[in-house]
Amino acid sequence: MGLNTRIEAAIAAAISVGQGSGAVPGRLASALDYATAPGGARIRPTICMSVAMACGDDKPRLTDAAASALELIHCASLVHDDLPCFDNADVRRGKPTVHRAYSEPLAVLTGDSLIVLAFEILARESGLAPDRVAQMIITLARRTGMPGGICAGQAWESEAEVNLSAYHQAKTGALFTAATQMGALAAGQEPEPWFELGARIGEAFQVADDLRDALYDAETLGKPVGQDHLHGRPNAVAQLGVQGAISRLRDILGGAIASIPHCPGEAQLAEMVRAYAERLTPVAPNIGAAQQRV
Amino acid sequence: MGLNTRIEAAIAAAISVGQGSGAVPGRLASALDYATAPGGARIRPTICMSVAMACGDDKPRLTDAAASALELIHCASLVHDDLPCFDNADVRRGKPTVHRAYSEPLAVLTGDSLIVLAFEILARESGLAPDRVAQMIITLARRTGMPGGICAGQAWESEAEVNLSAYHQAKTGALFTAATQMGALAAGQEPEPWFELGARIGEAFQVADDLRDALYDAETLGKPVGQDHLHGRPNAVAQLGVQGAISRLRDILGGAIASIPHCPGEAQLAEMVRAYAERLTPVAPNIGAAQQRV
Repeated sequence: MGLNTRIEAAIAAAISVGQGSGAVPGRLASALDYATAPGGARIRPTICMSVAMACGDDKPRLTDAAASALELIHCASLVHDDLPCFDNADVRRGKPTVHRAYSEPLAVLTGDSLIVLAFEILARESGLAPDRVAQMIITLARRTGMPGGICAGQAWESEAEVNLSAYHQAKTGALFTAATQMGALAAGQEPEPWFELGARIGEAFQVADDLRDALYDAETLGKPVGQDHLHGRPNAVAQLGVQGAISRLRDILGGAIASIPHCPGEAQLAEMVRAYAERLTPVAPNIGAAQQRV
Repeated sequence: MGLNTRIEAAIAAAISVGQGSGAVPGRLASALDYATAPGGARIRPTICMSVAMACGDDKPRLTDAAASALELIHCASLVHDDLPCFDNADVRRGKPTVHRAYSEPLAVLTGDSLIVLAFEILARESGLAPDRVAQMIITLARRTGMPGGICAGQAWESEAEVNLSAYHQAKTGALFTAATQMGALAAGQEPEPWFELGARIGEAFQVADDLRDALYDAETLGKPVGQDHLHGRPNAVAQLGVQGAISRLRDILGGAIASIPHCPGEAQLAEMVRAYAERLTPVAPNIGAAQQRV
């Protein structure tokens, strides 16, 4: 089974646990699927699974649970971030956002249910390796909630004075460090040596996202553009210009590859990061318009 | 230490884990505390802790984690239910709701962070008894999210046709069955025999809530009244009348006491349920106005 197929199967299995059977509220059950499939690039589960495979992947069900839990949390954050009180987005991944398609109450509940489901599917595998599962749950929680997870990252935008380093680390970096560390934990390895790889991929992703937000049109991106500029959010393109941000992105990804700990699948993992570097580095179809916006 | 003091200490300790230290977004950190203290009656943690103590309470830290996790989930549900897209409530427990005091984005994030924190504080105690903790996390998840938890209960209100039994069991009953079962699990007992006690207390609580919504004024209740009538929600007072609903409440609580499994602290637990029965049964200062509303 290819990596993509394995990831999609794991996510679909997790969603069907949440959907249940019998007397369930059908619209929320449907929204859980709508919010998670068809997915985006599945970057976080891909990184998680790649790290676990590089470390031997001796308990594949733990790896599957870790990868899908990460994606459920990521999708929950997208659903809540799209709400009218945040980005007020109408479109996500080329289709109406959950609150547009289902209603705002169901969007709040979809996010809540996906967060809960992420922890449930991890706990369900506890019998295989209780220590690993407990550490994975704690890692995922700390990278999702307060004081340093993606909720904290989003909350920095409500502060009068922003700690930029804490903001970026929490808002974008947190789930990438969760991805590398949960991959290592799923395969029975210590998580600490895997922090840097996740942090650097997160940093690269933030710069790439800034570039995409500045360079692409809404149709290519499948969501509204110019949001950073509109909301006055800190942005690498505003600080460094388009070419400067592209150079920065390449340097960070070089550092990410250099940080990979020694492990059986080290070379293959470096290859995966290189492939992502290619995908992340944007071609610039619309630099003129972007520079006007920035 | 009295039960109330122990509960407040456990919740405060959990919140301080979520608040962290150093560079954290201060308003969200403050909102975590605002949403959870001063609390309401702490009914769910009281039930959970009472059951654990009736079963021997051999790992008090597990009991504390279970009780506070339940209250964090309950408070998260209040914060999200108060949002403009649900009840649009301005007042909760006699003070402005979180979205009024802090903003709507911070209210969404407060709920999300409290949900995550509930699972984290359980997982942190895994070393004491990994099997119990994994079962507590699964129990809490299934009573919080989809397909049968309080999220599912809330989602029934978005369905064209409502399964009333599934709706009540999920919306109000779920966290009460979680409370009795997590209390039993924390003390190393099987959770199944404790389901009925939780289910009946939940049923009683729903009827009592319907009575309070119909009978009390906003100042006594600390939140808007007549909400069930306003939103056309199913309500025991509408079905049975005020006196009928009060009789029903007493019958259910009698059944709850009769359902308590044999355990060392059985008599004391029955006393606790009787004390709650007294508190739950409303005196009716304003029956005329309520009957007009109903």
